[in-house]
Amino acid sequence: MAFFDLTPAELATYAPELDEPADFDQFWARTFEEHGSGPLDFTCEPVETHLAVLDAFEVSWLGFDGHRVYGWLALPRGIEGPLPAVVQYTGYSMGRGMPFENIHFAVGGYAQFVIDARGQGWRNGSPKPGSEDPGLRTSGSVPGFMTAGVLDPEGYYYRRLFVDAVRLAEAAAGHERVDADRLFITGGSQGGAMALAVAGLARHRGVRIAGCAADVPFMSHFRRAIGLTDAYPYKEVADYLAAYPQRAEQVMRTLSYFDMMSMAARAESPGLFSVALMDQITPPSTVYAAYHHYAGDKSIEVYPFNGHEGGGGYQVERIHRWLAALDEGLSR
Amino acid sequence: MAFFDLTPAELATYAPELDEPADFDQFWARTFEEHGSGPLDFTCEPVETHLAVLDAFEVSWLGFDGHRVYGWLALPRGIEGPLPAVVQYTGYSMGRGMPFENIHFAVGGYAQFVIDARGQGWRNGSPKPGSEDPGLRTSGSVPGFMTAGVLDPEGYYYRRLFVDAVRLAEAAAGHERVDADRLFITGGSQGGAMALAVAGLARHRGVRIAGCAADVPFMSHFRRAIGLTDAYPYKEVADYLAAYPQRAEQVMRTLSYFDMMSMAARAESPGLFSVALMDQITPPSTVYAAYHHYAGDKSIEVYPFNGHEGGGGYQVERIHRWLAALDEGLSR
Amino acid sequence: MAFFDLTPAELATYAPELDEPADFDQFWARTFEEHGSGPLDFTCEPVETHLAVLDAFEVSWLGFDGHRVYGWLALPRGIEGPLPAVVQYTGYSMGRGMPFENIHFAVGGYAQFVIDARGQGWRNGSPKPGSEDPGLRTSGSVPGFMTAGVLDPEGYYYRRLFVDAVRLAEAAAGHERVDADRLFITGGSQGGAMALAVAGLARHRGVRIAGCAADVPFMSHFRRAIGLTDAYPYKEVADYLAAYPQRAEQVMRTLSYFDMMSMAARAESPGLFSVALMDQITPPSTVYAAYHHYAGDKSIEVYPFNGHEGGGGYQVERIHRWLAALDEGLSR
Amino acid sequence: MAFFDLTPAELATYAPELDEPADFDQFWARTFEEHGSGPLDFTCEPVETHLAVLDAFEVSWLGFDGHRVYGWLALPRGIEGPLPAVVQYTGYSMGRGMPFENIHFAVGGYAQFVIDARGQGWRNGSPKPGSEDPGLRTSGSVPGFMTAGVLDPEGYYYRRLFVDAVRLAEAAAGHERVDADRLFITGGSQGGAMALAVAGLARHRGVRIAGCAADVPFMSHFRRAIGLTDAYPYKEVADYLAAYPQRAEQVMRTLSYFDMMSMAARAESPGLFSVALMDQITPPSTVYAAYHHYAGDKSIEVYPFNGHEGGGGYQVERIHRWLAALDEGLSR
Amino acid sequence: MAFFDLTPAELATYAPELDEPADFDQFWARTFEEHGSGPLDFTCEPVETHLAVLDAFEVSWLGFDGHRVYGWLALPRGIEGPLPAVVQYTGYSMGRGMPFENIHFAVGGYAQFVIDARGQGWRNGSPKPGSEDPGLRTSGSVPGFMTAGVLDPEGYYYRRLFVDAVRLAEAAAGHERVDADRLFITGGSQGGAMALAVAGLARHRGVRIAGCAADVPFMSHFRRAIGLTDAYPYKEVADYLAAYPQRAEQVMRTLSYFDMMSMAARAESPGLFSVALMDQITPPSTVYAAYHHYAGDKSIEVYPFNGHEGGGGYQVERIHRWLAALDEGLSR
Amino acid sequence: MAFFDLTPAELATYAPELDEPADFDQFWARTFEEHGSGPLDFTCEPVETHLAVLDAFEVSWLGFDGHRVYGWLALPRGIEGPLPAVVQYTGYSMGRGMPFENIHFAVGGYAQFVIDARGQGWRNGSPKPGSEDPGLRTSGSVPGFMTAGVLDPEGYYYRRLFVDAVRLAEAAAGHERVDADRLFITGGSQGGAMALAVAGLARHRGVRIAGCAADVPFMSHFRRAIGLTDAYPYKEVADYLAAYPQRAEQVMRTLSYFDMMSMAARAESPGLFSVALMDQITPPSTVYAAYHHYAGDKSIEVYPFNGHEGGGGYQVERIHRWLAALDEGLSR
Repeated sequence: MAFFDLTPAELATYAPELDEPADFDQFWARTFEEHGSGPLDFTCEPVETHLAVLDAFEVSWLGFDGHRVYGWLALPRGIEGPLPAVVQYTGYSMGRGMPFENIHFAVGGYAQFVIDARGQGWRNGSPKPGSEDPGLRTSGSVPGFMTAGVLDPEGYYYRRLFVDAVRLAEAAAGHERVDADRLFITGGSQGGAMALAVAGLARHRGVRIAGCAADVPFMSHFRRAIGLTDAYPYKEVADYLAAYPQRAEQVMRTLSYFDMMSMAARAESPGLFSVALMDQITPPSTVYAAYHHYAGDKSIEVYPFNGHEGGGGYQVERIHRWLAALDEGLSR
Repeated sequence: MAFFDLTPAELATYAPELDEPADFDQFWARTFEEHGSGPLDFTCEPVETHLAVLDAFEVSWLGFDGHRVYGWLALPRGIEGPLPAVVQYTGYSMGRGMPFENIHFAVGGYAQFVIDARGQGWRNGSPKPGSEDPGLRTSGSVPGFMTAGVLDPEGYYYRRLFVDAVRLAEAAAGHERVDADRLFITGGSQGGAMALAVAGLARHRGVRIAGCAADVPFMSHFRRAIGLTDAYPYKEVADYLAAYPQRAEQVMRTLSYFDMMSMAARAESPGLFSVALMDQITPPSTVYAAYHHYAGDKSIEVYPFNGHEGGGGYQVERIHRWLAALDEGLSR
Repeated sequence: MAFFDLTPAELATYAPELDEPADFDQFWARTFEEHGSGPLDFTCEPVETHLAVLDAFEVSWLGFDGHRVYGWLALPRGIEGPLPAVVQYTGYSMGRGMPFENIHFAVGGYAQFVIDARGQGWRNGSPKPGSEDPGLRTSGSVPGFMTAGVLDPEGYYYRRLFVDAVRLAEAAAGHERVDADRLFITGGSQGGAMALAVAGLARHRGVRIAGCAADVPFMSHFRRAIGLTDAYPYKEVADYLAAYPQRAEQVMRTLSYFDMMSMAARAESPGLFSVALMDQITPPSTVYAAYHHYAGDKSIEVYPFNGHEGGGGYQVERIHRWLAALDEGLSR
Repeated sequence: MAFFDLTPAELATYAPELDEPADFDQFWARTFEEHGSGPLDFTCEPVETHLAVLDAFEVSWLGFDGHRVYGWLALPRGIEGPLPAVVQYTGYSMGRGMPFENIHFAVGGYAQFVIDARGQGWRNGSPKPGSEDPGLRTSGSVPGFMTAGVLDPEGYYYRRLFVDAVRLAEAAAGHERVDADRLFITGGSQGGAMALAVAGLARHRGVRIAGCAADVPFMSHFRRAIGLTDAYPYKEVADYLAAYPQRAEQVMRTLSYFDMMSMAARAESPGLFSVALMDQITPPSTVYAAYHHYAGDKSIEVYPFNGHEGGGGYQVERIHRWLAALDEGLSR
Repeated sequence: MAFFDLTPAELATYAPELDEPADFDQFWARTFEEHGSGPLDFTCEPVETHLAVLDAFEVSWLGFDGHRVYGWLALPRGIEGPLPAVVQYTGYSMGRGMPFENIHFAVGGYAQFVIDARGQGWRNGSPKPGSEDPGLRTSGSVPGFMTAGVLDPEGYYYRRLFVDAVRLAEAAAGHERVDADRLFITGGSQGGAMALAVAGLARHRGVRIAGCAADVPFMSHFRRAIGLTDAYPYKEVADYLAAYPQRAEQVMRTLSYFDMMSMAARAESPGLFSVALMDQITPPSTVYAAYHHYAGDKSIEVYPFNGHEGGGGYQVERIHRWLAALDEGLSR
Repeated sequence: MAFFDLTPAELATYAPELDEPADFDQFWARTFEEHGSGPLDFTCEPVETHLAVLDAFEVSWLGFDGHRVYGWLALPRGIEGPLPAVVQYTGYSMGRGMPFENIHFAVGGYAQFVIDARGQGWRNGSPKPGSEDPGLRTSGSVPGFMTAGVLDPEGYYYRRLFVDAVRLAEAAAGHERVDADRLFITGGSQGGAMALAVAGLARHRGVRIAGCAADVPFMSHFRRAIGLTDAYPYKEVADYLAAYPQRAEQVMRTLSYFDMMSMAARAESPGLFSVALMDQITPPSTVYAAYHHYAGDKSIEVYPFNGHEGGGGYQVERIHRWLAALDEGLSR
């Protein structure tokens, strides 16, 4: 897709005002108190795989309202002592997949945790049953989640998912093989949104994030996004409002509690973003909108001729270099 | 879409063997006993509309597991005595819509009931909140339902929906303005599937159906359908099995409890089908598969050059003539 | 389709200058004198249908040059005295359909007339032969009607159609069951254009319109429309000018006699518009262009996330409320 | 488009039975008597062009019912004596274009006539007004010409066009520069249909055709064609029958008077066909259906990997060689 | 495609600054010295065709680095003395085709030369083997030629092609039947780019161009073009930069030696451009960018409602009139 | 894409006759003698990456005609002694990518070699320059490699690529860290074709393959494939033959030296195939055609509802289990 959004020059300074409710912080404080403050009950079982230089585990923990959530953990074999960790959040429709499919960071020397986003996984199933969403009761069914419970922030799907995500970071920080001071988070698209949400919300659980790498993050600047692109999943919101035009402000109010501009504005860790200028799925202006509000030290990689695949391997390498530099500072 | 399925001559005799589990009837008997035998608690509140020759009501009743389900009722004004009734079931993604949108049969002199399929309505919202699916917790969210709970028949979405549908027929039969001996059911696509399911299952609730008009019915002969067409919603099943190839037989087993071939084989009332030979959404061979198993008196209207829109107004007129003839027989 | 036209703020004030020929009014005055002043020769024959609360009739009248034009009339049964009336004009490609397909207003208590636009009906046929267009001469026209006779205003298809449309309003006003002071007109897309044309031209036949409800009206601000959208039927004009680039100004001159901005500027009745901001078929700025020139009292309903389907049932309800309020004023 | 029709082996013998009415010949005899027997009133005016080795003329003649029809004539300059002639018929939507656009055969030494098919030309306009179709009356026809007047053979568009086409051949045969014994006809797609129609019908006007080259001819074996392809213009018929399903046999009856299988079966001249096996617009089996019924000496060029473009320049060369061989035989 | 680029008013003055390297002229001087200064070794063999008023020849000459390049020559028969000549350059993917396919100018009285662009011809093959590109070395190039050798200007495909093109003009000027003072060049799309390149570079070989007609020329203002359109072949560059984002400036540097803005700025002959405002393949602003830099006398034909087909026959006629006027001036 | 090829039952026995030239083996024997028998000149340089549990190297060797070809090698860290090895061949358009992108087998304990297919890499570039194809001469080829040099087997692109591929296996077998008796090869799509080609041709270089895992392999049963699917890259051949219809048999002859049916028939090692029944890119019948000719022990995994993505992670796991079982047998 050719350029369809603001020009590079406009993007470089595009920082729309936050569109957040007055009680944003209270909402999330209350959310974590009432639905995310119980015990983690973390479990970690070895998984048999063909991996020769990594150890793989199925992990689980209690997420929102004590629902059990699943994921993977991979540890590099033959490295002693506490490890830096990367928690990886997954893109829309993607479950955790097979235990050997998300191991980039473990191969790079990190303890790598991967979430199995509740109810998702319809693009890359796994031979084990995925995590259900007891607030919704789907498990890897064919889509979609963008308007599930969207009539009020209390019932919105992403409220449950973001609590799950923060609590995985919390579990990672407390893992015996992990050096809690060297806890990084990352993800692309919906995974980038989860990473930013964790960056902004982790303090509610007393977790400190050492760095957040968000690639082409989703769920930012909803008001602009849903009028700017016909691509799913943003389009799910427009489809819904085509059926219920009278609910537009109600839906916008719900989404304002989940906007990455607001999450970014509450982040404290260093941040690395990536953006692709021909990306219709997470249009560049919406990524920049979050980026410019990001409150930590930050930088952004721009891929002018790419779509939602973003920088691919180039960005993987960039993240590794960025993590290594951060980690070196932290390890001293 | 040009002809892509069997030839007209092949269709005329296409009756694949039933693909049903041995405990099909026990499954449904148990389902109604355990989840569909409580009180209906039927409610009926007048709705203010602009209708001058009809009276409109919002109705509700207790469906599967006592979940409250909603719908509309429209009554022709100025006609005395008990009325024949038509229960109308809606297509995939469609909610009940506005109270004045499904009134064809009321205008024709019938008490017309319309279901608000639980959790659906993302194509035509209504200013009132729609029916939730407490077994799923969605209300008019953007799709889909074909694989929701598909791992076992007990948890499959359509188990709940079919119980709701039968119980609406039950409620209609018991309505004070309705002549229970003249209770007809109808619907197109998913609505045709619901109508056939009610035709096949109504006896579990002691309801007698006087006629079933199923247009281009969905959910028939799943094994053939999902390999024959790329059109949604059948494609949801193929998408799911692309992500979980190891679950194919498990999914097929679940679907075998919900196949219209088996429902049709248990129908007792007269039946009127319609089929369109260029219909990719409910391919003609799958419609004929149900038709040829239909156990009641039956006839089928064939629209050779139409797609899933089927016969449109021609079929509406055809159904009215068919209903009138049946009704005349019953009224004597 | 995402937003592609002016912003809501720009639309709210978008009122391009009229692009009309100096002899616009003379053209239409002469048209009605020479081609639309003969006797109506109105006929009205009962039609057998399944309708129990309405009476249906096939009507006909003499339109442009005395060509016979057909339509339906539906009357609510059981209401005494003169009725308010709604004349409904149909969308591009749509004929009058079946006599029970356009009855919304009759069910609401109005005498409802429906036109069978000459030569149209290829999307929803009727078992009766439709109206022919004896005036049609095509010469290198793009298939469809937008460029049929477009080389001069005298021979343009819509000249004949608009005369037919005005004369149906005239016939409705004179109908024995109709209260001529309570004559409303409505339609969507091409039907909205016909309604606006009748609102602007009815005085040439001495007809008084009590209200005009135009949904997502077509044929407005042609110069902008044909460069703004690739959607048909506007695209028929661009296709024609691609084949005959040297005729652009000649075609634009013809169209300037048929532009809804000019028709709206001559309307005297109250007007209700609807517009959808993701509508590629009748782009929002073209609808606003007509709206802002509308000379009567007016209001507009905006559907931000809808395409050409506009407000659907919501708008139907809106129109009924609007009609009821107007009618109440008129009936007192 | 990959192979979608019969296999090459099946095609080689695919000769479905003729599907023609008993009065086919009477119909056409009467047509020519009543609508095609008047004077030709041929005109021929030089046109100013940039052509240096050809002379170009605008020609006209009286076609069906005495309607004036137009075309071009190009003559090679500097060749003495009577010339062999090629009458070229044009594809659907194409008018005669510019006088220098269809000159292949004139450049090759033939007098080349080109028809301006009545009412067509919306793909390649010409600065001169094209031929009108004064006989056109549409009533719910699908835009385009395939269903214009299709309710009976008397009023069908192609009846008029085929008479025009035969009479152009007649005019060509009588032209002072033409050797009437060396009169060839050709065309592709709709032009191929016109050529075959002329081959089959020319004897009604006493015209002798010396050779007929029909490339990927259209309008053959309608019953098969409209169910085999979604491509226009065959699809116009299916669209029409989707709107008017009850008219299928009536339409098929009309088309049976215009089927190239029947026209081919009446041809007497040598014939050269071409067919492309990936052609969705005129599917190969329909071309072979006409070919195998062709009554003259015949051969066919097969282009296995081409679509409707057919053999392009290869076939042009093939036709020239074929014409040259025929012409040599005739000139001796 | 609706208007997607600048407005007509903006286009009329759209003249972005040249984006050319300081050594542009040295690069091309060196290129011709080192790779384009050897003998032409022109050959000219009669070809047997069916052409009766033209003589056709296969020509060949030595292009870049002495590689042999092929083409056609057509001469009008029966015209004495030296002829004006037109060298025609072909569009992307097009080879020279059959010897009778590009004869418009020969038929108009010119000696017409046609290039067989090295390595191209995959859309219209010829029964003779086409010209190879012995200089081609691809390494991770996007299929096609736009990025073949794009890492440096020395190895870029178009360097070789433009030298071939200039040397064909040189050969034409030296042909015995050609009046070297009346040498015109033309082409559309890539052919328009070749024509402009020859107009700008011909002086390196001492060739004088009498007029250059460039229709919808390609390869102009690359920086804008690749972000403005998704259409191929410009998109090949964006595809390449999506795979190699780190090479963007390197690629842009290479392309800057081949930009038609710079070529046009070096032209000396009169120039005739055409532009289509709905052209996605060579967007109008990029055509105007070259036009406004064109250094010779110039005019431009604008086709507002056309796509990349441009003015078709209208523009052919326009070019012939323009050539005739120029030629008349030159012949005096 | 729904099922479009043979039924599962037909596929299970679909073994079309080999379509191979009599001198197939001589051709390849001569090819290796004349173009593939020189020294390997293998190089292996460490690459700096972020990999903590693997060591990465850039490797190169001399392929066809001594052209230098590149690739990656990854070795699991901390495992002593000779390793089993996997040589991975890449899909069409894919280069070797980044050194950390193809490490599945290294992570599983194998020495993993990855080829950088000459001239490819336009979908996933690498910051290092890729391998050139000095043998490439295109002449009217369709963009891409399927028809590059296709006029004779000597010059066909894949002749060079297959020699490169065999010689990488040879180099791997001779690597100091590799146990030559445990040399496996794998790849998907074009990579599957390369793997099968190596399985069939390795004996020309005295290399013994211990197992060949070919996923959804390409380049099998060309005659069927190019008429069965419209998907690229098979479609490149059909596009070429549309431009050069007269070359069909010549092209088929060339391809017959490169058909996987023939390669499979010469394989000696155990083989594991995968096939997806909705795969348009490598249609299932073409995969089975190779499978049924495969001469070694063999098995095939069938993914009924997948397209060309095949079994994804499921198949990766399947391959690992298969390799482990083979390796265990070999290691004893």
